[in-house]
Amino acid sequence: MEFNYKAIGYVHSPHQEAHGTPIQTGAAKDVEAEIELLPEYRDGLMDLEGFSHIILLYHCHKAGKTELLRKPFMDNKKHGIFAIRAPSRPNPIGLSIVRLVAIKDHILRIKDVDIIDGTPILDIKPYVPEFDTKEVTKIGWLEKNVHKMEEERDDGRFLLKKDGEDDRKE
Amino acid sequence: MEFNYKAIGYVHSPHQEAHGTPIQTGAAKDVEAEIELLPEYRDGLMDLEGFSHIILLYHCHKAGKTELLRKPFMDNKKHGIFAIRAPSRPNPIGLSIVRLVAIKDHILRIKDVDIIDGTPILDIKPYVPEFDTKEVTKIGWLEKNVHKMEEERDDGRFLLKKDGEDDRKE
Repeated sequence: MEFNYKAIGYVHSPHQEAHGTPIQTGAAKDVEAEIELLPEYRDGLMDLEGFSHIILLYHCHKAGKTELLRKPFMDNKKHGIFAIRAPSRPNPIGLSIVRLVAIKDHILRIKDVDIIDGTPILDIKPYVPEFDTKEVTKIGWLEKNVHKMEEERDDGRFLLKKDGEDDRKE
Repeated sequence: MEFNYKAIGYVHSPHQEAHGTPIQTGAAKDVEAEIELLPEYRDGLMDLEGFSHIILLYHCHKAGKTELLRKPFMDNKKHGIFAIRAPSRPNPIGLSIVRLVAIKDHILRIKDVDIIDGTPILDIKPYVPEFDTKEVTKIGWLEKNVHKMEEERDDGRFLLKKDGEDDRKE
C-alpha cells in the first residue's frame, strides 16, 4: 500500500549540509531557522502561535538508501533502523520538536533547529505535554550513549551519494 | 514536490471504527494492540525492545478531505489544522507515542493505543525523553480544554464519507 504526500513548505536553515549539523534539537540550542509554508496553507496556522513548541514532520530529502541495520551517530554498534533515529529509513520521515518563536503571514520563525536547509515539511502539529510527554522506564542502547548527543555531529554517513551509494564510515 | 511512502506494517486494534475511539494515547490507558510489521522489515526491530515507549507515525487511512480550519474534539471553535491534531490534514500523518510491551518476530505488542484497526504504519522510532520531552511555556487553545482529553471520544467528524464528503457535525 502506497501513499502520496506533498511538501507543505520548506525549511530555511543555517545548516547548509548534513556534515556538522546537530543530531538532535537538544544539541541545536537557539539555532534559529524559518519555515516558509506554501501560501495556500496559511489559514491552517490559525491559533498555532499560542503554542511554545511544535512538532515538525519532514521528508529527509538527502537520506541514502535504506538499510535495516545501521550504526547511529551515538554508538559504534549496529542497531535496527527502528531503534535509532537515522534518516535512511524505509520511509525517510524526520521528526523534530522545535521552539516556535513567531508566525508572520506564512513564515514561521523557529529555534533549536537540527534540520538542514531546503528540507520539505510534511506536517506541523502543536506539541502538547499531556499527549507527547511519557514517563519512560528504559531507553535501550541510548542509556549509555545519550550523553553524546551534544558533542556528536552529523558526519554524512546517511547521505545519498551521487552514485547512489551511501557515504558510510562504518 | 511529492513523496511516495509505503506501509511497513498494519495495526490490529480493538478500535474497529473511528466512532468511540479515544482521541489520544493518554485516554487509551492500557488499551492493547499489535503492530504486524511486514516480515521483510523484521531486522529493523533489533534492539528496539530495550525502549519502554515508541513513536508511531501512520497514515490516517479513514481521514476525510483537508480543510484548513476545523473544530477539534476538545473545543467548539475552529482552529487552524496545524494547531490541532485532527487526522484530516494536508498530509494525513498520525503520531502516537505508545508503550512497547513485547516484540516477537515481526509482531509488536503495544499499549495505550488510540489508533483504529487496519491503520497502515509508516515509521517506528524509539521515544527518548532527551529528544522528545520539552519544557513548554504555553499550549494555546488547549490550555482551557486539555482536561477534556479523557472524556471526549472520536465522533467520526473527520471521517471520509462514502460520497466523498466529510461526516462533520459542526
